Amino acid sequence: MKTENGSARPLPPGATIGILGGGQLGRMLAMAGARLGLKSHVYSDEPDAPAFQVAHAYTLGRYDDEAALKKFSEACDLVTFEFENVPEDTARFLTAHVKVAPGPLALATAQDRLLEKNFVAGLGIATAPFKDVTSAVEARRAFEALGGPCVLKTRRLGYDGKGQQKVASADEAERAFTAMGGLPAILEKFVEFSFEASVVAARGHDGAFAAYDPSQNEHENHILRRSLVPSPLTTQQIAEAESIARSIAEALSYVGVLSVELFVGKNGALIVNEIAPRVHNSGHWTLEACLTSQFEQHMRAVAGWPLGDAARHSDAVMENIIGFDHDEWLNLARRPAGLHLYGKNEARAGRKMGHITRISPRTKS
Amino acid sequence: MKTENGSARPLPPGATIGILGGGQLGRMLAMAGARLGLKSHVYSDEPDAPAFQVAHAYTLGRYDDEAALKKFSEACDLVTFEFENVPEDTARFLTAHVKVAPGPLALATAQDRLLEKNFVAGLGIATAPFKDVTSAVEARRAFEALGGPCVLKTRRLGYDGKGQQKVASADEAERAFTAMGGLPAILEKFVEFSFEASVVAARGHDGAFAAYDPSQNEHENHILRRSLVPSPLTTQQIAEAESIARSIAEALSYVGVLSVELFVGKNGALIVNEIAPRVHNSGHWTLEACLTSQFEQHMRAVAGWPLGDAARHSDAVMENIIGFDHDEWLNLARRPAGLHLYGKNEARAGRKMGHITRISPRTKS
Repeated sequence: MKTENGSARPLPPGATIGILGGGQLGRMLAMAGARLGLKSHVYSDEPDAPAFQVAHAYTLGRYDDEAALKKFSEACDLVTFEFENVPEDTARFLTAHVKVAPGPLALATAQDRLLEKNFVAGLGIATAPFKDVTSAVEARRAFEALGGPCVLKTRRLGYDGKGQQKVASADEAERAFTAMGGLPAILEKFVEFSFEASVVAARGHDGAFAAYDPSQNEHENHILRRSLVPSPLTTQQIAEAESIARSIAEALSYVGVLSVELFVGKNGALIVNEIAPRVHNSGHWTLEACLTSQFEQHMRAVAGWPLGDAARHSDAVMENIIGFDHDEWLNLARRPAGLHLYGKNEARAGRKMGHITRISPRTKS
Repeated sequence: MKTENGSARPLPPGATIGILGGGQLGRMLAMAGARLGLKSHVYSDEPDAPAFQVAHAYTLGRYDDEAALKKFSEACDLVTFEFENVPEDTARFLTAHVKVAPGPLALATAQDRLLEKNFVAGLGIATAPFKDVTSAVEARRAFEALGGPCVLKTRRLGYDGKGQQKVASADEAERAFTAMGGLPAILEKFVEFSFEASVVAARGHDGAFAAYDPSQNEHENHILRRSLVPSPLTTQQIAEAESIARSIAEALSYVGVLSVELFVGKNGALIVNEIAPRVHNSGHWTLEACLTSQFEQHMRAVAGWPLGDAARHSDAVMENIIGFDHDEWLNLARRPAGLHLYGKNEARAGRKMGHITRISPRTKS
């Protein structure tokens, strides 16, 4: 993809983008690529992966099946990811065989809460106070040092509240560490915030940067329930959020869409909670309210195309359809809203089955 | 699909909609179905049909291959079409094996310009004056009866200006009839109009009806170049256009999206030019400017779902990318606009390769 002078040569229409992961994010990426005439090849270890249904080609294979990965890489002009927990060996193997975006640095950073926190703090961006914890006794000491309620989080493989537990005392911190299997963890001071927000942004091969308006996010049971744009953030806070996303993207030499989850403190300060090196649930509203959705933006960025218009033409409220909410699909289809169902063959409690976005004329710039 | 009391039972998410025809319309139908969790099975006789790239399943087969059609029909919960020129035998064969929407009456009517004109006129809706022509001598007589410039059109298989010729004299009419192979035709009086418009609308199993705002359409070399919404039509003309579409849909017991092309006379009168029993190029702007695109609306209608919101939230200008315009894809991708490329592997003069839609805040209700 790189020309001699280092500039990116865009993949032409008809090129094949490999997508590792076959869930709803991979599905929406594949569909966004198809709008642009790009073909998708989805790789997943799930036989009924939702993204298989819309991909030009797919491979059903384990993430450690090097023969299958090699064949996959040969069928693709470039490979990208729908999730950050790509096994390190898989990422390394693919990188050796095909152009991969975003690059391994972003994956490695986002996969490990300790690396991530140190990386963000190293950019001079605020995070919650935290301590590295590798033993039960360290958990106790970390609690004592931080003081007050904390959250113990495993360093790796956490999402939707999995691998984390709130603790109110040093004893609880110690017990939680043991209960969570003694895995390497961080203890993070619980931050009082007035609301949660996120900024979804893209960076191109050429360093071009485009951020979507930040959303306000509401969680239930640690799962995103709804995202609202515009958020209550002030113009200055929005500029700060974009600047945070930009610093992170640049420091990672990032190519693609990434999202940064933020706590908005009662004093108005923005604190980075988490980086997701991928399209994000809190950016689904862009499908209805922007000319270029986050999915298309990601495909444009990784394919070396110019970034699309990320301006919001409408206000939006995106709501997830979770678990058995899906039984109500016919009633949801009656609403004047953009309905998205992910083609999953079975609803389960807590499983993201779809989302629905209502829009209204833009009220705030 | 019909319950005992005659009401439609909607196909649930996960159901398979068969789409006969694999061009860009089939492709965009398949993608719109996927948004709703519906699977698509595309049937086409072209090995590199663009819609194959995004379909859950596809069949490459001739339209007269009954074994392949039977297998296809068995794999689908319902079959629909992306084009009206489905061979009559194919339509009849499928109807005997699977639920088909829209039904054969709409296809038969739209396939034959004489039936179509008689049908429209029979509803009391204005068309250009016309005469049935089955011989060279009839072509001459028809010209003399109509008086003034005319267009000779074959009754069947015309689109994008194919199978039609403008004639300025009785001699020319006679010669044109012979030059066009002596096929059954109609001679239609050339109508002076101030502009062309179209109305795209949907009717559900339950008789529900929803029309999009009519567009103004500009043609070049008989191929649609661009569509603009809002059009210059007055509120009263818009109501009349919708009422025309509704009358036609009801008279055909139509299920799905259909479009009606109109000439807008210098005196403001609306004259029906043509009915297309399918999604239509002049409705592509709905992808960006409405919550429910014409493609999703069609899938909702045929699947027995409630119709979606057809309101226009933005003004729009849709422009086709034709033939070697496609070479400019990278420059087109730089525009702040919704870009759609159809995944065709070769540009040819006059071939529709994609379209691009720019939107702006809604200016007129």
